Amino acid sequence: MLTIAVDAMGGDNAPACVIEGTIQALRESGNRFSVVLIGQSEKVEPLLALQDTEGLNLRFMHAPEVVTMDDIPAIAVKTKQESSLVRGLKMCKAKEADAYVSAGNTGAQMAASLFVLGRLPGVLRPTIYAYFPRIQDGLTNIVDVGANMDCKPEHLVQFAEMLTIYQRYGAGIENPVTGLLNIGEEEGKGSEVLKQAYKLLKEADSKGKISFAGNIEGHDILKGNVSIVVCDGLVGNTILKFGESIPGFLGSLFKPAVQKLVGAGDLDEKAAALATQLFKSMFEPFDVEKFGGVPFLGVDGISIVGHGRSSSRAIKNMIFMAEHMIEKQVNARIAEVLSEA
Amino acid sequence: MLTIAVDAMGGDNAPACVIEGTIQALRESGNRFSVVLIGQSEKVEPLLALQDTEGLNLRFMHAPEVVTMDDIPAIAVKTKQESSLVRGLKMCKAKEADAYVSAGNTGAQMAASLFVLGRLPGVLRPTIYAYFPRIQDGLTNIVDVGANMDCKPEHLVQFAEMLTIYQRYGAGIENPVTGLLNIGEEEGKGSEVLKQAYKLLKEADSKGKISFAGNIEGHDILKGNVSIVVCDGLVGNTILKFGESIPGFLGSLFKPAVQKLVGAGDLDEKAAALATQLFKSMFEPFDVEKFGGVPFLGVDGISIVGHGRSSSRAIKNMIFMAEHMIEKQVNARIAEVLSEA
Repeated sequence: MLTIAVDAMGGDNAPACVIEGTIQALRESGNRFSVVLIGQSEKVEPLLALQDTEGLNLRFMHAPEVVTMDDIPAIAVKTKQESSLVRGLKMCKAKEADAYVSAGNTGAQMAASLFVLGRLPGVLRPTIYAYFPRIQDGLTNIVDVGANMDCKPEHLVQFAEMLTIYQRYGAGIENPVTGLLNIGEEEGKGSEVLKQAYKLLKEADSKGKISFAGNIEGHDILKGNVSIVVCDGLVGNTILKFGESIPGFLGSLFKPAVQKLVGAGDLDEKAAALATQLFKSMFEPFDVEKFGGVPFLGVDGISIVGHGRSSSRAIKNMIFMAEHMIEKQVNARIAEVLSEA
Repeated sequence: MLTIAVDAMGGDNAPACVIEGTIQALRESGNRFSVVLIGQSEKVEPLLALQDTEGLNLRFMHAPEVVTMDDIPAIAVKTKQESSLVRGLKMCKAKEADAYVSAGNTGAQMAASLFVLGRLPGVLRPTIYAYFPRIQDGLTNIVDVGANMDCKPEHLVQFAEMLTIYQRYGAGIENPVTGLLNIGEEEGKGSEVLKQAYKLLKEADSKGKISFAGNIEGHDILKGNVSIVVCDGLVGNTILKFGESIPGFLGSLFKPAVQKLVGAGDLDEKAAALATQLFKSMFEPFDVEKFGGVPFLGVDGISIVGHGRSSSRAIKNMIFMAEHMIEKQVNARIAEVLSEA
């Protein structure tokens, strides 16, 4: 039976919603796998005692230290060896667990994953991607979204290769298509790194490792013509955070506009409620909690990273994603493709 | 009297809407300046003849060649010397005009401006910025939005310095505040270029050249805590184009959602019309045509760049921006500050 290590201390609503999400995952899956919840006993055990865990494949493991959102990644990894983060990843390394799941400090999780698990053969730099809404059916992922600054062309190509494998085997997309984020569509556009990346992506396409659609621009991201958008970590991180701020920004414009119409007698309360419901429904494609989190691609193990704001539903879905990554053997396929000459 | 050279051939709706915008600008300003419309006589003169231009400070100048949206900038500048683009800029260089305005091929306009007008003393790289909506009152500009790839730290600092001068003298903002777009707020975040830029921006702040608020992230752009967002051209161009795609993306979600509610009898036609009006009003802050266009900052002359989709209103406002740039002597101030050691 698969064992998934879950960081009880990770996320803004930890440990309460981590406990809830874990129990939901075990219930919904019919105890298909087992979970080890790791955290401070004084914080976790009282909450766990309030839940009905009878018959669930769930056990608790104490970790006295906690990595917080404010911890500096490289320092946290070295000084907090007795944290749920480091203990959970060490369980994976020792094959006592098959995956690690956390909604905690992303930077610290990436640093610890790299330090404890190491890289898969052939991988230059592990990477992290994000989900984006799209007009067409399907899935859009952007890679890298903050793990890698100063990317070289060969790093960008590997990001596309790894995400192609993930989408194909982990997400069931038959033909993942990669676009290179640039300032124009034509070949020869952009920085020296992008020009060279374009050439290498074409080569990777001709070898069948990816399907490359050429350069795309910022206005193409939401269209959904490509399933993989490749860029440097600064660009991806900025687009991701900018995108996340849009529902709130529009909400701040929408509320006073509705109030004004209600005040002028142009909209009754019922219509205002409907308009508000309509407004909220527009942002359903922005709901990425259905994916829960993302795997840190390229490390020699499975380390699933979640948003700090993760709900219990997101935690549950992160656990399912971990199970999926294990079963589909995504890592073995990445190692196979990336260690080819 | 000031003379503004206007590219009659620039933009998706040229020359018709350029002619209209020009006439509107002259009428609204009470003939405060004069305009030279430059373009192909066979295209422009018939349309001009349909308008009442009696008493307006407007003259037409023939230019046989046209730079199109598909022209490669560097090649267009060399091979199309008899275009409205090159002729208009040469008029500025020869002091026959005080500014040049176009909604044509942006890349070609930048290349030609640099080639014909040259750089202001002390300027390493001229730059182009864009307007962004914001929650707080005021103005947010992002710089650079595509003129410069592979920026060095000293380029980013000059972008902030030039835009600070523009906002202070050209846009009447008393204390423009600069943020450096990064993956985190803390000093020491990001690429080597960003780390170094952070230090140089702090120095520029201590010299009183700018007011530096430190690093900002993607979700801060729409907040309006800073008036100047500094980044590399790839990041700025991507955010700009991504941002421009959002109203259309949400519209594509909104329309079917309204239809569904109407179909289900939950919304009557009147309420649906109101909801649609409400939806449109949300995007009023995204209306950047009130600014018309942006000056290409750092060149030794005034070259105003507009969106290809510019309406006659945008053209009118671009002409007013040109007048404003001349009167406020923004270029003289840029040269003064940037040529200091």
